[in-house]
Amino acid sequence: MAAPSPGYSITVRAEAPAAIDTTGTLAAAVADAGGALTALDVVESRAQGLVVDVTCNASDADHAERITAAIAAVPGVKVRKVSDRTFLLHLGGKLEVNPKVPLKHRDDLSRAYTPGVARVCLAIAANPEDARRLTIKRNTVAVVTDGSAVLGLGNIGPAAALPVMEGKAALFKRFAGVDAWPVCLDTQDTEEIISIVKALAPVYGGVNLEDISAPRCFEIERRLRDELDIPVFHDDQHGTAIVVMAALTNALRVVGKDIGDVRIVVSGVGAAGHAIIRLLDAQGATDIVGCDRHGALDPDAEHRDEFRGWIASNTNPRRVRGTLKEVLAGADVFVGVSAPNLLDGDDVATMAPDAIVFALANPDPEVDPVAASRHAAVVATGRSDYANQINNVLAFPGFFRGLLDAGVSDITDDMMIAAATAIANCVHRDELNASYIVPSVFDPDVAPAVAAAVRHAAGAHERHTDDPEDAHA
Amino acid sequence: MAAPSPGYSITVRAEAPAAIDTTGTLAAAVADAGGALTALDVVESRAQGLVVDVTCNASDADHAERITAAIAAVPGVKVRKVSDRTFLLHLGGKLEVNPKVPLKHRDDLSRAYTPGVARVCLAIAANPEDARRLTIKRNTVAVVTDGSAVLGLGNIGPAAALPVMEGKAALFKRFAGVDAWPVCLDTQDTEEIISIVKALAPVYGGVNLEDISAPRCFEIERRLRDELDIPVFHDDQHGTAIVVMAALTNALRVVGKDIGDVRIVVSGVGAAGHAIIRLLDAQGATDIVGCDRHGALDPDAEHRDEFRGWIASNTNPRRVRGTLKEVLAGADVFVGVSAPNLLDGDDVATMAPDAIVFALANPDPEVDPVAASRHAAVVATGRSDYANQINNVLAFPGFFRGLLDAGVSDITDDMMIAAATAIANCVHRDELNASYIVPSVFDPDVAPAVAAAVRHAAGAHERHTDDPEDAHA
Repeated sequence: MAAPSPGYSITVRAEAPAAIDTTGTLAAAVADAGGALTALDVVESRAQGLVVDVTCNASDADHAERITAAIAAVPGVKVRKVSDRTFLLHLGGKLEVNPKVPLKHRDDLSRAYTPGVARVCLAIAANPEDARRLTIKRNTVAVVTDGSAVLGLGNIGPAAALPVMEGKAALFKRFAGVDAWPVCLDTQDTEEIISIVKALAPVYGGVNLEDISAPRCFEIERRLRDELDIPVFHDDQHGTAIVVMAALTNALRVVGKDIGDVRIVVSGVGAAGHAIIRLLDAQGATDIVGCDRHGALDPDAEHRDEFRGWIASNTNPRRVRGTLKEVLAGADVFVGVSAPNLLDGDDVATMAPDAIVFALANPDPEVDPVAASRHAAVVATGRSDYANQINNVLAFPGFFRGLLDAGVSDITDDMMIAAATAIANCVHRDELNASYIVPSVFDPDVAPAVAAAVRHAAGAHERHTDDPEDAHA
Repeated sequence: MAAPSPGYSITVRAEAPAAIDTTGTLAAAVADAGGALTALDVVESRAQGLVVDVTCNASDADHAERITAAIAAVPGVKVRKVSDRTFLLHLGGKLEVNPKVPLKHRDDLSRAYTPGVARVCLAIAANPEDARRLTIKRNTVAVVTDGSAVLGLGNIGPAAALPVMEGKAALFKRFAGVDAWPVCLDTQDTEEIISIVKALAPVYGGVNLEDISAPRCFEIERRLRDELDIPVFHDDQHGTAIVVMAALTNALRVVGKDIGDVRIVVSGVGAAGHAIIRLLDAQGATDIVGCDRHGALDPDAEHRDEFRGWIASNTNPRRVRGTLKEVLAGADVFVGVSAPNLLDGDDVATMAPDAIVFALANPDPEVDPVAASRHAAVVATGRSDYANQINNVLAFPGFFRGLLDAGVSDITDDMMIAAATAIANCVHRDELNASYIVPSVFDPDVAPAVAAAVRHAAGAHERHTDDPEDAHA
């Protein structure tokens, strides 16, 4: 069973006898059921008894029910209700839209709305580039999904995907001051998605594609890149590739190997795997083997899409064949962006000495990280409850900050490599070790460093388009 | 020339000699040029002279240039730069997207984003109605335009329309706590707009169509009403009709006439005119004559769209013919939603005694309101610089507040009439007079009263969907 997580935190309101050991008994019941107690608040105290809020982390929904049952089984205790802290947090949604301008009196209205706004409209009609100066386009990103590949949950549709997109937008603001807005599309038709995003583009300075299943996501991204004049980023591809590259840069520093010399196995050739492999290739990796569920991609076979085809023809120089487990033997680096529990510790033991294992399937990794760490020198996952969380939030906020500030219309490999290097370098030499290859997501230096790297790679200096000197009509 | 307006406010930074009468001379120069001085700030003072910021309202852009020239013509004065306060206000756009949830540490991230968010997604996938409880859909409205009929500016396109839509969204939040988001579509194809708005709907609890030209706006609105399960409002139609009905209710109280007895001429049979006529009809008006630029709609002619056709066959019981000026003679009420300067004071003089004139073309009304008021008992415009501003902001924020709170999927005439009555009743009996037929847009009672009226008309009590009791999985 997974460790209790704050993502599964519940508050059980219980009536209990007013005895001296009541809270201790409740705490023991939680602990015996495997829950992690985080708070115990007496909310009412009367002669006939107490009302206590017991807050604890569980491993999953079933575990939460077992903990609740354990509390209810304490003699004299009655459970009044169970609140789920995650659901509480989501009530009413996680975003709001706020005016940045005062609207206190008529003069404010005259400037922000009619009649004054008409002149601003005419200025943009005369000079469309002014939209980046005089509207939210300056700082706004669309977070676009069709709900076809949400987290590890699969094709749950646009409405069920919205909580993720809201969370993403919240992170954009929290970490880089970017205004991001969820666009959850009730269509999974490639051409329709492309034409809708093009039609929406006037409001946005960038597009972040999210949780769209492969191979449609490749086509959508490529077409939008070609047909729009704002940057199009697919976080599952580019965001993941940037943070994997950042983590690998530091992991290789830890074990003293060079990217040009190592054998790398990538499990998963969907959106993330494809982008990771392309960026590894651009960074000088020479021996990459991409695997799908059948094992190493066969360089001689017909592939079902050109993206797998590209991987098959541009990697695997030793032309190895076999299952994932077979081709893993002797590898220096494993990068998993595929499915849970494909490997065990014994498989990791077959890798080269000082192996690096990135098991990024979410929420359950390709291999149990504890088991992997018995045989590998460096282990990373996508989870927050283990060391070395490879989390896209290290990349996308600062990356878009840089794109918007530089006003670029296209994303290049150079920008992605610069961003990865900036993230890696946020771990200082004296901090770097096998359990600390990526900075904390709360490290305030990361997003500005990534933004500066992107601006620099774009050849732009920081733009101050909010300078009042620009306020001519 | 129109009166100076805060929508055309400039700040002229001038270097001037350090003489005792410098500021007085600058103020006189502004006044002589017809500007309205609002501030005079000395920002630097040295032995060799002063730097003064002269802030004043102008009538239009040319006037602002004449004022600047007048300041520059003062002996010894040099204009350093001119800032436009309206453009200053718009720099970087007028909206931002903010997280409503804390994102301070890992536990916050675990609940708002992965892994906790996955359970919220699954809950919505299992029960789609939960989207209104657990996402921003609860409180969020799309402000949709194609930029084809923006203010009085015409077809300026989606990018140039964005400042208006941002302003609208800002008003939604300011007056009713509704989160609204601009959707400026780079297409003017009716079918494409319909299919895009349908595809965007999962994120929104309502749609506000805005500044889409007639007759496409009718078709778009009708189809979206039929095909979506969230309410679709066209502010240019329904918002305008509600506030016109509210104002007319009070204007008729002022002159002591009844809606069933008066002769009403409506100039303009586009989006606004059509909706106004339908709502007047639903409220019991019996003698309405609709006019386009050629005069009264001919009941016997073929009309270019079914909407004009509906007006022609359902109004004008006396079957009058002629130009607007001709049919206006003897009318009790004129409602203009058409074009500037169609009438003069002499035309208003031909109306019945105690005439009511609503000249709502923006920014320049159908008739000069000062000239009209010499002959009419009640005069209203769409402008903030005259009494009786008929402003949609009285209606749309509270109307959507009510729709969202009641969770309704369709808008009815009953809701619109209830909203109009609520607005009218916000002017108390002892306040009501010919110069005060609508409440101030800043009257804090208006939006709640409108929202309550809509909820009541929808048969709903206030819903508390943010109640923590709802936080079950």
